[in-house]
Amino acid sequence: MTLLISNEDAEQILSITDCIDALEQMYGELADSRAVSGHRSDMVTETAHESGTYSLKMMGGVIPKFEVGAVRINSDLLGYPESGGIKRRVKIPAAPGDRWVGLVLLFSTRTGEPLAIFPDGVVQHMRVAGTSALGVKYMARENAKTVALLGAGWQAAAQIPAMAAVRNIEEFRVYGPTPERREKLCVEMEQKTGIKMRPMSDPQSAVKDADIVLCATNSMTTVFYKEWLEPGMHVGAIRNVEIEAAAINAADRVAIHDPSGLTSGYVLRTKGMALGDGKKQSADDPALKHLADAPILADLVSGNVQGRTNETEISQFLNYQGLGIQFAAAGWALYQKAKEHGRGRDLPTDWFTEDVIP
Amino acid sequence: MTLLISNEDAEQILSITDCIDALEQMYGELADSRAVSGHRSDMVTETAHESGTYSLKMMGGVIPKFEVGAVRINSDLLGYPESGGIKRRVKIPAAPGDRWVGLVLLFSTRTGEPLAIFPDGVVQHMRVAGTSALGVKYMARENAKTVALLGAGWQAAAQIPAMAAVRNIEEFRVYGPTPERREKLCVEMEQKTGIKMRPMSDPQSAVKDADIVLCATNSMTTVFYKEWLEPGMHVGAIRNVEIEAAAINAADRVAIHDPSGLTSGYVLRTKGMALGDGKKQSADDPALKHLADAPILADLVSGNVQGRTNETEISQFLNYQGLGIQFAAAGWALYQKAKEHGRGRDLPTDWFTEDVIP
Repeated sequence: MTLLISNEDAEQILSITDCIDALEQMYGELADSRAVSGHRSDMVTETAHESGTYSLKMMGGVIPKFEVGAVRINSDLLGYPESGGIKRRVKIPAAPGDRWVGLVLLFSTRTGEPLAIFPDGVVQHMRVAGTSALGVKYMARENAKTVALLGAGWQAAAQIPAMAAVRNIEEFRVYGPTPERREKLCVEMEQKTGIKMRPMSDPQSAVKDADIVLCATNSMTTVFYKEWLEPGMHVGAIRNVEIEAAAINAADRVAIHDPSGLTSGYVLRTKGMALGDGKKQSADDPALKHLADAPILADLVSGNVQGRTNETEISQFLNYQGLGIQFAAAGWALYQKAKEHGRGRDLPTDWFTEDVIP
Repeated sequence: MTLLISNEDAEQILSITDCIDALEQMYGELADSRAVSGHRSDMVTETAHESGTYSLKMMGGVIPKFEVGAVRINSDLLGYPESGGIKRRVKIPAAPGDRWVGLVLLFSTRTGEPLAIFPDGVVQHMRVAGTSALGVKYMARENAKTVALLGAGWQAAAQIPAMAAVRNIEEFRVYGPTPERREKLCVEMEQKTGIKMRPMSDPQSAVKDADIVLCATNSMTTVFYKEWLEPGMHVGAIRNVEIEAAAINAADRVAIHDPSGLTSGYVLRTKGMALGDGKKQSADDPALKHLADAPILADLVSGNVQGRTNETEISQFLNYQGLGIQFAAAGWALYQKAKEHGRGRDLPTDWFTEDVIP
């Protein structure tokens, strides 16, 4: 049978620790070329929907150690509203019932069969946060206690348990431009984690004296500046405009998730379609030139490159651009848990296989 | 609802003419950059299956004119047996019930929702054959009557109705290394199409005086040679080793399906995995250098480039490397027909959408 697993199942049975562990094993495999991640494509076109922008995204990867491969697909209507003076990229829930469309298909490398199908939402949050957490694990100071979180949306929310899984965090300071939103997030997460959460009214005071700063926004402009850097600080980002180029150049150690995050070659557009994501840091950027030689997360996890050598270095982990193989890792962990707990809906595997040679 | 369409449905309701028409419209859109095809990936790794080679393939494309996007996924165990002295690449049906795993997911560009899911088998045969047929439509002589078919497998079988849809073919001469197989194909297809089918015991006599030669094999070595070229002949191929490089150089006009077929950059392998497909024509090959400037099918369909200017030119269409967008075109045609005929199984769209933002 092919298991249809829901976001509710994933929320309940997959812990961020399981997810981080699966990701970490995967990066070890990737470092030694025992696993592969495919070429990602974001296909951006017109649409009859009022938003004007459709995006079909596909990414995938295979991890023989786990005996799985995965393909993740997103079929999105995109909008670019402004809020708090900042232009943001949002996915519009345009499918029936005001729903989003993101799917992961998990396959067996032993038989080829589809083992599981699940919506990507919960796993997507976990894999982004889990990857940032691995950046922290390998680069931040061992004794880091305070985290400044720039962003108060779902990406930011997901970072909280992930950071707490890799360091003994005593306080999160949360800044987002909307007061209600940052306060709500703090109340919710303090209840959930038992860790002190402080809503902050400006980003600079959130960042001051923090051991770790995490940018976790959907902003299309810079949210962290060079002047804010302090000795021993670790700064993480999930989008390639969040950290000012000068701040990247000023760091002692910078690691990136994967080199594919430095180009926009994965975006394929029909005529006249703007890139949509606004100005990305361009290849002419001195910061990006510096990054061409930067170690990648797989180097850190495998021990090929050391993440931090002393307490005063400024480190940065640029978690730009997801990889399809992250869904193979997290999907494998989710599938194990679903089998263990008897969760999910069994669908006939024959629906998704065939007796005609393809 | 999301429609689950079977190969049986596709076989019964989708005609090769519908498929060729959808493909032709799609290439017109592609030529004017009103449609996009994504980066294809073939991720090749070890497997615990005895075959030793697992391949996860993903490709996709979006056609706003049809309001659809598609992703096609293949999860294959690959073997490389020899038959008739020729090494072949075969997909092993290793999924439960000895089945193959190939899936197409069709999405709406208006709502993002998954409109349909179907196994790729029947559509896969039609899109390869339909694309070769477009090569014939735009390049072969109008009065072409005889076709030599090199190959007697399912790819070859699919070419027969496709060729008959674009030219008034009076005779097919079929060569494959296994006598029973070519004879069986001839009996079956003569019954099905009413067109004369002649099984041939050697390729050279099949090719002699033929107006059109189609290589439709899974061979990993050359099957068509320069000495066999004749004035006015059109030669088609579906794999990049089928036509000898010297024969490609000797043609008057050569068009290719898409430039992505000339590189192997889409194949991503784990350490120690051979490419599997054996020796491909390399980028150093003089024939390939010549091909870098060759027109693509979209150029021919849009009229940007003329396919043939006189009766004596030797033309070639190299239908190497499929594009994901072909599945958006053929999938759109199939979905229309399924709705029209009330075919397919309705699945709840909610299974494949979500209320968690991805």
